[in-house]
Amino acid sequence: MAESRQKYKKLEEEVAVLQRRCRELRIPVMVVFEGLSAAGKGTLINRIIQPMDPRGFKVTCISDPTSDELSRPFLWRFWRRTPSADRMAIFDRAWYRSIIDGQVNGSLGKEALAKAYTDIRAFERQFKDGGTLIIKFHLHISKEVQHQRLEELRANQSTAWRVTDEVLLRHQRHDQYCEAIERMFLETDLPDTPWEKIDSVDLNTAAHKVLERFASSLRERVKAEEKGKDSKPNRDSEKPPKFTDAPSLKTARLENTLAKEDYFSLLDERQAQIRDLQSEAYRRRIPVVIVYEGQDAAGKGGNIRRLTQQMDPRGYEVIPVSAPNVVEKAHHYLWRFWTEFPKAGHVTIFDRSWYGRVLVERVEGFCTKGDWRRAFREINEMEENFHHFGAIILKFWIQISKKEQLNRFRARENDPRKSWKLNEEDWRNREKWANYEEAVEEMFLRTHAPNAPWTIIEGNCKRHARIQALDAVIAAISSRL
Amino acid sequence: MAESRQKYKKLEEEVAVLQRRCRELRIPVMVVFEGLSAAGKGTLINRIIQPMDPRGFKVTCISDPTSDELSRPFLWRFWRRTPSADRMAIFDRAWYRSIIDGQVNGSLGKEALAKAYTDIRAFERQFKDGGTLIIKFHLHISKEVQHQRLEELRANQSTAWRVTDEVLLRHQRHDQYCEAIERMFLETDLPDTPWEKIDSVDLNTAAHKVLERFASSLRERVKAEEKGKDSKPNRDSEKPPKFTDAPSLKTARLENTLAKEDYFSLLDERQAQIRDLQSEAYRRRIPVVIVYEGQDAAGKGGNIRRLTQQMDPRGYEVIPVSAPNVVEKAHHYLWRFWTEFPKAGHVTIFDRSWYGRVLVERVEGFCTKGDWRRAFREINEMEENFHHFGAIILKFWIQISKKEQLNRFRARENDPRKSWKLNEEDWRNREKWANYEEAVEEMFLRTHAPNAPWTIIEGNCKRHARIQALDAVIAAISSRL
Repeated sequence: MAESRQKYKKLEEEVAVLQRRCRELRIPVMVVFEGLSAAGKGTLINRIIQPMDPRGFKVTCISDPTSDELSRPFLWRFWRRTPSADRMAIFDRAWYRSIIDGQVNGSLGKEALAKAYTDIRAFERQFKDGGTLIIKFHLHISKEVQHQRLEELRANQSTAWRVTDEVLLRHQRHDQYCEAIERMFLETDLPDTPWEKIDSVDLNTAAHKVLERFASSLRERVKAEEKGKDSKPNRDSEKPPKFTDAPSLKTARLENTLAKEDYFSLLDERQAQIRDLQSEAYRRRIPVVIVYEGQDAAGKGGNIRRLTQQMDPRGYEVIPVSAPNVVEKAHHYLWRFWTEFPKAGHVTIFDRSWYGRVLVERVEGFCTKGDWRRAFREINEMEENFHHFGAIILKFWIQISKKEQLNRFRARENDPRKSWKLNEEDWRNREKWANYEEAVEEMFLRTHAPNAPWTIIEGNCKRHARIQALDAVIAAISSRL
Repeated sequence: MAESRQKYKKLEEEVAVLQRRCRELRIPVMVVFEGLSAAGKGTLINRIIQPMDPRGFKVTCISDPTSDELSRPFLWRFWRRTPSADRMAIFDRAWYRSIIDGQVNGSLGKEALAKAYTDIRAFERQFKDGGTLIIKFHLHISKEVQHQRLEELRANQSTAWRVTDEVLLRHQRHDQYCEAIERMFLETDLPDTPWEKIDSVDLNTAAHKVLERFASSLRERVKAEEKGKDSKPNRDSEKPPKFTDAPSLKTARLENTLAKEDYFSLLDERQAQIRDLQSEAYRRRIPVVIVYEGQDAAGKGGNIRRLTQQMDPRGYEVIPVSAPNVVEKAHHYLWRFWTEFPKAGHVTIFDRSWYGRVLVERVEGFCTKGDWRRAFREINEMEENFHHFGAIILKFWIQISKKEQLNRFRARENDPRKSWKLNEEDWRNREKWANYEEAVEEMFLRTHAPNAPWTIIEGNCKRHARIQALDAVIAAISSRL
């Protein structure tokens, strides 16, 4: 007994040291606790956090989603809570909760269930590949033990209220829950993200085992990191997707123009249509995601302004994307985009986007080849997720000729009101025109998904480009309504 | 006509420049739009954001509070949305919405109404004093114009759904709303935070006027800032409060100890009590805020650990407070504490807190004398706000003798597992012992409010200190239940 206590204390001390070490090495950690009611999740979580520095972790209790969370894709609320590089996120129930419940109460059909597990596998793989350490504990108790614990809770005046009808119903369905959990293991007990299955009939033994597994997971990872071993698996054998009907820059007809006298009446008319469509999409709670990409001076800002001029500002938001800041850098590269996903019925316009990973980051070498190659699949998965939630997704690449860009740069140089828009980086990027074109063509090929297609906007004539973009938005929303 | 258009364009260009300038000068800006249904808030907001760089602002639409927001004090959701120094927050309806509605539909009684306006005045004053530029627009339309606009919305297929029964009810009560708005002006149209009253019968004229007032407010403030004029008003004549029954360090009996043989059984018993009380407070949705302050090595961390050891981790959180990070520095100094306010039923323990303003920031000169003197009132206002929401507030100052601190520093130096806890700053702080004591005594005197009292924990004997803190928490929660 005393020996075991001694051992436990040693483990606690080790966890305290390892936690600090993880922060120093900037290893984000996600710890998941799943298990039936009264399995002791709270107690065990409290045991592992006791030795740790509270600066470095956050416990999140996952219950029913709020109305805000219900108006976003299923994984949105978990993306928001994923840890940054100096934090540990501890989940009391996690993304499994609603799936297990859904299987047991029948609200999730066969197909939806399979789909949800696919999403979860992708989610965990993306984090693992991004460098996050994921530790998953499942606490098991038998129906008899559960019964006994619920009775104890009921006997105590200050805890009796916890044993709600819902909890009792779950207790009655213990067998079905065990079945659902078997399915969960089958789908998600993977070499990269295994489950630690803990028998929690005796809480002290369970605590010891949890702490042991927790410490060893941290220890292994810290060691690997200290040896400079890349934690990212090599997925080079996995081929990124290919969409054969993808557009190509070669087909862009940059000579297309629109005369001034036609432009203003067209603009007025289209903007009025957009305003009405926005209102209708809002009523039907359809989220709309619009991505703008394009070379410097392609006219993205002006194009977006024409798109939003008559829109209701309460229902749209423009997210300008530049290099990630300190906080964003400490998270998964898709984190800042997931968290900005529009509420059902709203429109979010990204002025540059997650495609930075396969454009500027690829060309400039800001990430490894493995990183940007993996990104094609990850981006498709994310957009597929958005689509499953019902989002309309439009992606614009505004193309201009190299000569037109030069003209615009020169004009900016000479206009004191616009010169701030131009900097040396723009000139440097221009020199890599061919590399960017190569990256753009591959981006089209790999991410022109049926439900998230690319549209090349012919940008040499700004008026033409604006009406073309407005038309594409009108077509996409109308065809859905 | 063409002349007016020309003028409007000039204003837009000026706003674009001023917005960038505000970001460079790090002036946070809050813009509030209030007004009746169909007064044109959306249209006018869209007009002022058109010329601006989307990187620098965010439009927030305030509707009914979510369940998450309802479990926090009334102003919590606005604190969360207040702008950082490089941002502009534009509110479509704001903290006035629920007050005006509450007056009209009678859900806010006379006293509650007066209290709400007091809170709002304090809120706006605190931001103004903290350097935020607040611009408030109220758009007015007559009942006839409102009627006409609602008819127009109804006539259009894609906007008809906006004219809900609720909107119609508000329309019927136009007179009562006008009365409530008069009251709002009476309470909050102050020299420091005046209302811009805009007649929005003609939206173009209104847009022109809004843009003009918007530009001139920004212009004035930018000019003042460029001249190096301190934007913070001098409130030195306003005396901070004084609580005559405040405790004093002189009365702390540091010689008090607790023997080891008594300690463990007391600890067990108290922790079990705390666990039950936490459960009961959770059930009754009472939030609990516990502040720990004290010199370095006073034993805050260990004390907090004993307090939480048996608690349910799903219902408590420890927030360790150190120097503000970049994001926190760009906000009002109270922002990071407001945003961490516990959900109803939860316990939040601050390991150091907002009292840093009147302790370390005062002693080290990290803020001006005006800043920390103003802070007494601001802190009392914040805690009063928490109290009105029903929170239990406990504030602990753990006092140790200077000699005991030295012993602990030496012990840390000699223990390789603890040496990381000690740094040069700790030695430097120690030299200012007397200055800290002076600051602590004034802190007691100025912030020992009846609903947020200070308790001095006698910290020389850690066992004694832990049981003393546990007892204080037990007493505070029990007496409320």
